[in-house]
Amino acid sequence: MLEIEAIKTSVFESLESNVRSYCRSFPTQFSYAKGALLQDEHKREYIDFLMGAGALNYGHNNDYIKEQVIKYISNDGIIQGLDMYTNAKEAFIQQMNDTMLKPKELKYKFMFCGPTGTNAVEAALKLARNYTKRTRVFAFMGGYHGMTLGGLSVTSNASHRNASGVELNNVTFIPYEDGYINNFDALDYMESLLKDTHSGISKPAAVIVETVQAEGGVYVASEAWLVRLREICNKHGILLICDDIQVGCGRTGTFFSFERATIQPDIVVLSKSLSGYGFPMSMLLLKPELDIWKPAEHNGTFRGFQLAFVGAKAALEYYQNFNLEQTMVAKSKVIEHVLKNEIAAMHPDIRIRGIGMIWGIDFAKFQESDITGKITQRCFEKGLLIESTGRKGAVIKLLPALVIEDALLDKALDILKEAISWHVQQTVS
Amino acid sequence: MLEIEAIKTSVFESLESNVRSYCRSFPTQFSYAKGALLQDEHKREYIDFLMGAGALNYGHNNDYIKEQVIKYISNDGIIQGLDMYTNAKEAFIQQMNDTMLKPKELKYKFMFCGPTGTNAVEAALKLARNYTKRTRVFAFMGGYHGMTLGGLSVTSNASHRNASGVELNNVTFIPYEDGYINNFDALDYMESLLKDTHSGISKPAAVIVETVQAEGGVYVASEAWLVRLREICNKHGILLICDDIQVGCGRTGTFFSFERATIQPDIVVLSKSLSGYGFPMSMLLLKPELDIWKPAEHNGTFRGFQLAFVGAKAALEYYQNFNLEQTMVAKSKVIEHVLKNEIAAMHPDIRIRGIGMIWGIDFAKFQESDITGKITQRCFEKGLLIESTGRKGAVIKLLPALVIEDALLDKALDILKEAISWHVQQTVS
Amino acid sequence: MLEIEAIKTSVFESLESNVRSYCRSFPTQFSYAKGALLQDEHKREYIDFLMGAGALNYGHNNDYIKEQVIKYISNDGIIQGLDMYTNAKEAFIQQMNDTMLKPKELKYKFMFCGPTGTNAVEAALKLARNYTKRTRVFAFMGGYHGMTLGGLSVTSNASHRNASGVELNNVTFIPYEDGYINNFDALDYMESLLKDTHSGISKPAAVIVETVQAEGGVYVASEAWLVRLREICNKHGILLICDDIQVGCGRTGTFFSFERATIQPDIVVLSKSLSGYGFPMSMLLLKPELDIWKPAEHNGTFRGFQLAFVGAKAALEYYQNFNLEQTMVAKSKVIEHVLKNEIAAMHPDIRIRGIGMIWGIDFAKFQESDITGKITQRCFEKGLLIESTGRKGAVIKLLPALVIEDALLDKALDILKEAISWHVQQTVS
Amino acid sequence: MLEIEAIKTSVFESLESNVRSYCRSFPTQFSYAKGALLQDEHKREYIDFLMGAGALNYGHNNDYIKEQVIKYISNDGIIQGLDMYTNAKEAFIQQMNDTMLKPKELKYKFMFCGPTGTNAVEAALKLARNYTKRTRVFAFMGGYHGMTLGGLSVTSNASHRNASGVELNNVTFIPYEDGYINNFDALDYMESLLKDTHSGISKPAAVIVETVQAEGGVYVASEAWLVRLREICNKHGILLICDDIQVGCGRTGTFFSFERATIQPDIVVLSKSLSGYGFPMSMLLLKPELDIWKPAEHNGTFRGFQLAFVGAKAALEYYQNFNLEQTMVAKSKVIEHVLKNEIAAMHPDIRIRGIGMIWGIDFAKFQESDITGKITQRCFEKGLLIESTGRKGAVIKLLPALVIEDALLDKALDILKEAISWHVQQTVS
Repeated sequence: MLEIEAIKTSVFESLESNVRSYCRSFPTQFSYAKGALLQDEHKREYIDFLMGAGALNYGHNNDYIKEQVIKYISNDGIIQGLDMYTNAKEAFIQQMNDTMLKPKELKYKFMFCGPTGTNAVEAALKLARNYTKRTRVFAFMGGYHGMTLGGLSVTSNASHRNASGVELNNVTFIPYEDGYINNFDALDYMESLLKDTHSGISKPAAVIVETVQAEGGVYVASEAWLVRLREICNKHGILLICDDIQVGCGRTGTFFSFERATIQPDIVVLSKSLSGYGFPMSMLLLKPELDIWKPAEHNGTFRGFQLAFVGAKAALEYYQNFNLEQTMVAKSKVIEHVLKNEIAAMHPDIRIRGIGMIWGIDFAKFQESDITGKITQRCFEKGLLIESTGRKGAVIKLLPALVIEDALLDKALDILKEAISWHVQQTVS
Repeated sequence: MLEIEAIKTSVFESLESNVRSYCRSFPTQFSYAKGALLQDEHKREYIDFLMGAGALNYGHNNDYIKEQVIKYISNDGIIQGLDMYTNAKEAFIQQMNDTMLKPKELKYKFMFCGPTGTNAVEAALKLARNYTKRTRVFAFMGGYHGMTLGGLSVTSNASHRNASGVELNNVTFIPYEDGYINNFDALDYMESLLKDTHSGISKPAAVIVETVQAEGGVYVASEAWLVRLREICNKHGILLICDDIQVGCGRTGTFFSFERATIQPDIVVLSKSLSGYGFPMSMLLLKPELDIWKPAEHNGTFRGFQLAFVGAKAALEYYQNFNLEQTMVAKSKVIEHVLKNEIAAMHPDIRIRGIGMIWGIDFAKFQESDITGKITQRCFEKGLLIESTGRKGAVIKLLPALVIEDALLDKALDILKEAISWHVQQTVS
Repeated sequence: MLEIEAIKTSVFESLESNVRSYCRSFPTQFSYAKGALLQDEHKREYIDFLMGAGALNYGHNNDYIKEQVIKYISNDGIIQGLDMYTNAKEAFIQQMNDTMLKPKELKYKFMFCGPTGTNAVEAALKLARNYTKRTRVFAFMGGYHGMTLGGLSVTSNASHRNASGVELNNVTFIPYEDGYINNFDALDYMESLLKDTHSGISKPAAVIVETVQAEGGVYVASEAWLVRLREICNKHGILLICDDIQVGCGRTGTFFSFERATIQPDIVVLSKSLSGYGFPMSMLLLKPELDIWKPAEHNGTFRGFQLAFVGAKAALEYYQNFNLEQTMVAKSKVIEHVLKNEIAAMHPDIRIRGIGMIWGIDFAKFQESDITGKITQRCFEKGLLIESTGRKGAVIKLLPALVIEDALLDKALDILKEAISWHVQQTVS
Repeated sequence: MLEIEAIKTSVFESLESNVRSYCRSFPTQFSYAKGALLQDEHKREYIDFLMGAGALNYGHNNDYIKEQVIKYISNDGIIQGLDMYTNAKEAFIQQMNDTMLKPKELKYKFMFCGPTGTNAVEAALKLARNYTKRTRVFAFMGGYHGMTLGGLSVTSNASHRNASGVELNNVTFIPYEDGYINNFDALDYMESLLKDTHSGISKPAAVIVETVQAEGGVYVASEAWLVRLREICNKHGILLICDDIQVGCGRTGTFFSFERATIQPDIVVLSKSLSGYGFPMSMLLLKPELDIWKPAEHNGTFRGFQLAFVGAKAALEYYQNFNLEQTMVAKSKVIEHVLKNEIAAMHPDIRIRGIGMIWGIDFAKFQESDITGKITQRCFEKGLLIESTGRKGAVIKLLPALVIEDALLDKALDILKEAISWHVQQTVS
């Protein structure tokens, strides 16, 4: 761990904007990374349960991908290709279509946006509005879709919204299935809004949804709820946009998170782990009939970052070759067992939610302020990087690599259990 | 060149969205790149005057940078670090501050946004609005600042704006110095708006300006105009945001494009060539007193793409070690000479504008439709990648690598001369 | 009744905009009016259950008011006085304060806006926004507050909203107590939105409410619900605006409709029957501490229509001298009895709602389209002017003069009963 | 004049909102009015150069109109008729069409909105937006169109706009012909915006214009400018809305102010003096082909204020029978002579502008603050009610009755001359 004094005199403290955030929770300077581990300047190792906020599902510096990346750079493969035809893009599209779309009977066209999730969310909203000639969008309370003005307009977090400095309009927020507003049939309510000529709310172009709200506090929508949502959209001629930025790419147990509900969104937003190596990349999958784009209507210099295509193709190969969906199952069960049996048993106010390799431990019912801050701080001291999320940061979010070694997973869960136990006992006594 | 039939049956035609654009002008599939050259599948070489729309000022796959990049990846340096403290970020900040800020008596803090230009523009607008507690922004006609809703709101191009599907508000557009609306003192007009209690236009948080409008048609603001703009902003307490995404990083002859006017913007937006290797990266430089951000108010997963920091530090070293600002001067003069003496002489309606290594040949006065399309098409056939830009695409934009070899520059200019000459003669006869 | 042919060749058909509406339901030309009766050109009399959409609570051409109006005009009292001090305004303010505020321990300041309800709603929204420095307003589904852009923004009716041609923003609609969305605790929901940092909905400046939704379909909020609404506003520092335009001035049994719930709104909007004689007039009553207006920040030429002050003062005298609140009770009971016992008995799907002298007969559960149109048409033929309102016009709204003679009331109810009975029988058989 | 102490203890001071304005400049209580004169409680007479801000062109309590008004009320003519067919409305439409439209070859349909100018402006904007399917509107700097959100959006005055508490959008302001921004061809600029694909400004639904900006400081557009404006609108398919609220009804020398330029707006907004007696009334005249309104899409209770129709018909008769357009000419010349020859001679910085019976004396070039406040205060003391307007209130606006007796006009001008002379001498010395 970096000494506090060292940090205070660092270039970061003097030259980096106050907006920096994770570094405040994990005050050390990181140098190397491999798989589920990060190493700091002092060669101290940390098990990583952040995994680049979901951008590193296949582990840090995954060797399978690394090899192809280095080879591509070494050979002077084209790195920045705008949206010209390139070998790297062709290979990725082919691989994605052959392994992830066709076999699942998914028929989508590919749109490459600027390489961040919010770039792609913006493109999705534009397309939905232009296709339907409507301006309104429905989004869910607790949802997170990015920091640019369009992405922010569908993101519910008040502190992010306030930072925009302008009114964020044309969006109606609906409670999530099992979210903050309990005992409330949100879809029934949503459909009432659509049917009532006096709801004050015009028919939207689209509904944007995460099948699991990650930033919102790890809320998992049920399959039945997702099916109903798809049905309501069909019935009213509303597009369904699935934001799979954080929980796509295998996080929930299947490559696309919506597979478990056997629904097909009209537009799928992918980013984060898509490139497999932490390279910025995002894209939309869109139903072919939606592709009314005129050339260059939406663009972005870095939609042509070829190294991301190289990484993404390798990642898809890795995903299949190493049977990630199978290997994940046991790891998921280990986490679920520890959380539901051991951690939930520590206090009746602890709530557990999750699926696949994303889990949340909810401390919202605890009176004590910042209990999660204290727990994650203790984890950090013991060698585990883990963060809190959701309303008031009351939910500890577990986002390990899908490929974390079993021993490291056990060790991380032990650290977590100890930290929670310690603080829960203090709180109670 | 890829056969047209081959393209038609390619995965691109069947699976990539219609929004794709450059590939339509340059219908071949690219594989390799080095310096000022691109190579396609058929091993045909093209001199590149697009340079990733300004993202590759130091050439494709620059060897100096490449070496450090490969070394970093090989050593498993951390690739995706969110906004934690890392060696790569520290080294970049230090290098940038030591070589590009301190020596120029520039005092800025660094803010890393999502890695696209528009991500950074959005952050700049947020900050300006929050700092001033005002909502309005002034932007310039012809300006281009990105495709997300905030960036788009200050981008003037009608077809991009229409694609948003919603009203884009809170922005007042002002004519650019020597732009489409001639014989008009835009700054005098702008100040009138500020002084008139009945202009209907509230005082803005900021003015966002490009010192050279690239997408807008290669219009170069004069030093005097930029100085006056800075003065008006000072006088009225308005922040000046310089969007140096396309014309920063040396493009105009100095690292920051505003250096020639000896002004200091309050916020500088950098991206494109910043990482030196085509890696997505963007950042804000902001006056320290503006840094009222609260932690995490603006974020973005890929603000922590460490490989970009590695590339960016190497690029700064390269920029200095190889005396780019000096070597550029002769190349710029070659271009200027050919354009102003040889090409301008071909027809009295041809207009030449430019500075440093960005130049425009304006055919707006020609009756014939799409003359620039025909010229760039002929250039492509002869082995030069060059695009048209600005209103109705009437301006051919030269954006060569700053480090293009003299022989390649000559060859490219020869191709260009021949293509223009051919079409101008046809038009006239 | 005007012959259809005559109407077709009238100046109205050829020269008045298609936007005209009531005249289509009641195709005759009216000439005279007195009390509860209207007379057309052919000297045919109609009992009026529209009463100027609530603007004539004290009857057409009320003699008590008429006398003072004629005297004032005859004496050349000032008619148009802008917002200068005048005798007429002084007398009205004094009368209103002495008889309607002080005795009820209400402490408000008077603001005279332009003379339409929507002018006053706009002023109320401005004041609430400026006082709280917030932009959002909460309004209720089914609510109606006027046709100008601000009034329209809080009006829920889709066809009115669509007619604006622009996005109507900064408003969140909440279901009404017992409105279209049943079995839903709207206030609990509203408070959840306020407490959830991730509801996506910022704290509003104000909630605007009608204690009885008239245009929305005659929904009567319960006293308990209004008390809770007041409490939630207090708790969260939100202003409560009561729009008493249609149901104020005695319509519900007390002068202010909110008296029954013993709550005090922060701002009260009055118009319609305020002037007592159909003269355009509106005003705000505002809590003294809210009066942060700067001189002339809001104005309007006709806020100084002195004849309305004369009428309004006389109307207040009439209201008290003739004990309207007492005389209304029996009339209200007559209506309630006929509706709940006789009309409701005609069909199990008929719903009855109302209070004081505003009642609704809801046919929403009937399959047949436009049953209410047929009923009101038959009433018109039999000499009763009555309209349908609410979603799909499914609710017949009774809005008789507060002072209707008992015999006319009986006759009108007989006509109504007959018309409903006729059509219900047809529907069933 | 009311004693200051008396005012301080009045009901106004204690109970009327701070927003009141004219009463602060003219601190006395008015009782009676006739022709060009107002009388206060103390029987002091004032010559009125406000004339209800243009609502009393034919004088206070005009006897010709008064007679018909009293007769109508006495006979219990219907006062409030919603938008049903009535004798009073029929007679007005017929009179207006026969005397003001047909003879001038104007073909318009009538739309009655709520009775204030801003109600009608809102309806005009809605119609223009719906007809063209565009959202933007062009308005002029210095223009004034009302206080509701739509009217306010096209009103340029900063203090009024700020009072809205929300962003006012979808409007682009253009400098007026000879307004605050001198030496500027505003129409050329406006057309540039329309022709430039990169102006950032979308094609508007309509341009809204006053042929004379009254509140903006008495700026008179030239006939040539108005003709060009009409031509540009035609060329680009943009509707031209003429706001004739303040300068219509004869104020500029013809009934419609646009007659002098022989142009025909697509939509004409009338209010203020339309009813002839200070009764609230407004309406739109719209080209028949624009009448795409659906029944009830825009409404308003007081669009059916029949007494206003009665007054308006009588006013039209009076206007013709008494040859107002002829009798005005001499009065206009008297004013022009005094202003241009006598008052302008008092100081080289005084500017005179005007037409017909609206004139402005511009003191904007004077350093002294509030010189106009002092002048109007002295006028008040001497028995003349006159106000300042425009930027910083630097313009004294003369708005006498069109029918002011010559002797009263002379007397008023004498008071004005004396007051200006007095203050100008003080300023200079």
